[in-house]
Amino acid sequence: MTVTTLHRVKFFDTDTMGVVHHANYIRWFETGRVEFLRALNLTLTEMMDDGIVFPIVEIGAKFHAPAKFDDEIEIETTAEALTRAKMKFRYVIRKRGDEKILADGSSTNVFTRDGKICRLPEKFFARLVKGLG
Amino acid sequence: MTVTTLHRVKFFDTDTMGVVHHANYIRWFETGRVEFLRALNLTLTEMMDDGIVFPIVEIGAKFHAPAKFDDEIEIETTAEALTRAKMKFRYVIRKRGDEKILADGSSTNVFTRDGKICRLPEKFFARLVKGLG
Amino acid sequence: MTVTTLHRVKFFDTDTMGVVHHANYIRWFETGRVEFLRALNLTLTEMMDDGIVFPIVEIGAKFHAPAKFDDEIEIETTAEALTRAKMKFRYVIRKRGDEKILADGSSTNVFTRDGKICRLPEKFFARLVKGLG
Amino acid sequence: MTVTTLHRVKFFDTDTMGVVHHANYIRWFETGRVEFLRALNLTLTEMMDDGIVFPIVEIGAKFHAPAKFDDEIEIETTAEALTRAKMKFRYVIRKRGDEKILADGSSTNVFTRDGKICRLPEKFFARLVKGLG
Repeated sequence: MTVTTLHRVKFFDTDTMGVVHHANYIRWFETGRVEFLRALNLTLTEMMDDGIVFPIVEIGAKFHAPAKFDDEIEIETTAEALTRAKMKFRYVIRKRGDEKILADGSSTNVFTRDGKICRLPEKFFARLVKGLG
Repeated sequence: MTVTTLHRVKFFDTDTMGVVHHANYIRWFETGRVEFLRALNLTLTEMMDDGIVFPIVEIGAKFHAPAKFDDEIEIETTAEALTRAKMKFRYVIRKRGDEKILADGSSTNVFTRDGKICRLPEKFFARLVKGLG
Repeated sequence: MTVTTLHRVKFFDTDTMGVVHHANYIRWFETGRVEFLRALNLTLTEMMDDGIVFPIVEIGAKFHAPAKFDDEIEIETTAEALTRAKMKFRYVIRKRGDEKILADGSSTNVFTRDGKICRLPEKFFARLVKGLG
Repeated sequence: MTVTTLHRVKFFDTDTMGVVHHANYIRWFETGRVEFLRALNLTLTEMMDDGIVFPIVEIGAKFHAPAKFDDEIEIETTAEALTRAKMKFRYVIRKRGDEKILADGSSTNVFTRDGKICRLPEKFFARLVKGLG
C-alpha cells in the first residue's frame, strides 16, 4: 500500500537559502506516516489511549533537490517492514505532478508501553499488516 | 527584576526573506520567561510536578528590525503584573550590545490545575512576587 | 471576504502539555494569510519577484482553548484594513465544524522594497482592495 | 577536533509524548556544525558572502533515549571526511555531564555555487582541513 499526502510548503518551512530547511522533510515524513496509519483506520491517539507509544529510533534521508515556498509537494509513504516490536516506513517526496524526487528516506519506530519496548497488541498489528506489500 | 538571556540565531530560525521568521520571536519570549523563572529558583517542571500548568492566554509583539542568521540576541524579560491566577511578562529583544530594539512584546499566562484556572500555591507565588518591580 | 483554510494538527505542533504550542498559531495565521491572498489571485512569490516584501510589524493573539494532535482546524482569515503602505488581517481558529473559538488574533504588515516601506504598486493594490469588506 | 556545544531544551522542542520531537535533533546537528565551523574561524555567512552555499544532501540519526524539557544537552561534533566538493560530520548528543548517548548521527553536505556543486576555494578548504582528525 502506498499513501500519498499533499503539503503546501509554508514560508516558515524555508530558510535564508530560499529553500526548505532539511529538518522539515523529517517532519513531513511524520505527516506521511500519520496519514498512512489513518488509511489503515489507525491513529496515534487510539494507540496512545491504549498506552502504546511509537517512538522513532532511526531515520535517514537523502536530499536531491530543494522544495521552495508555496510548492505543493507529495509525500509518498510505504511500509517496508513490520514485526510486533518494530516498524519501518519509506518516504519519497516530489513536487506535485512531477517525477523528480526531491527527497527520500526512511524511519524505524518501535512500539513501547511504559517506556519499554512491547509486543504490539493484535488489534493494532492486524491493521498494520494490511499496509504491507 | 530584569533577566537577560542570550540566543544565537539559528539557520532554521530564518526564512526565505533572509531574516528570522516572526513566529520565532514568540518562541524566544518563552526562552526569556523560562530563564526569568529560573532566576527566581522556579522551573516549569517543578510546577508541573505539582500539577500546575502555565498556559499562555495572550501574546502581542511588535517587530521593528530583523534579526539575521548567526546574530547574537539578548532577550530581556521583566514581570509586569502578578496575581494568584495570572501573570504578565514583557520582553525586549536586541542584538547583543546594541541599543536598537529588534522586537518587543508581552505575554499573559494563567495558572491552571486539571485544566481549570486555579489559585497559585503560596510556595510558587512567594517566589514569583520577588520578581516584580 | 473571508477565506477558510484547513490544517490538520501535527505531532510536531504539540508540546509536553499535550496541546499545540502557542507560537504555532502565529504560523497558522500566516497559512491563512497566504491562502487569503491566493483567493485574490496574489502570491507572495509574485510580489517578491517584483521586489516587494511583506514583513509583519505587529501581531497579537488570544488563546481560548487548546487544539490537540490530529485535530482538524479551520483558520478563518479576513482583511481588516488596507492602505498602500500597510495591511491588517484578522484570524479566527476553530476546530472544524465547531463554533468554539480556540484562538484569534491579528497581524499588521507593511509593504517594503529594498528594505524600506514603499507604496504598493497598483497591480497588487487593486487585487487586495477586492478582499476588503 | 571535537567541538562541544551546549543547548538547553526548550518547551517548544518537545511534543505530546513529553519528550523532544525527533526532528529537532537534526536541527541540533546543525547547531553543532555551525559551532564546529566557528571554532575553525569559519562562518556560513562568510561562505555565503563569497557565493558558496552548503546544502545538506544526506542525514542519518539514531535515537537511543529521549531528552526532555529543560535538559541541558551537549552536542559533540566531529568532521569525518572532507574533499573539495563534500564534507561529512558526525554528532553525538548527551545530557550534560552524562555518559549515556541520547542520539547520534551524521550529515553530508556538498559545496555549491549558483546551485551547482563546486570546488571549495582554498581559503575555506585550508581552514576546514584543520578540523579533520
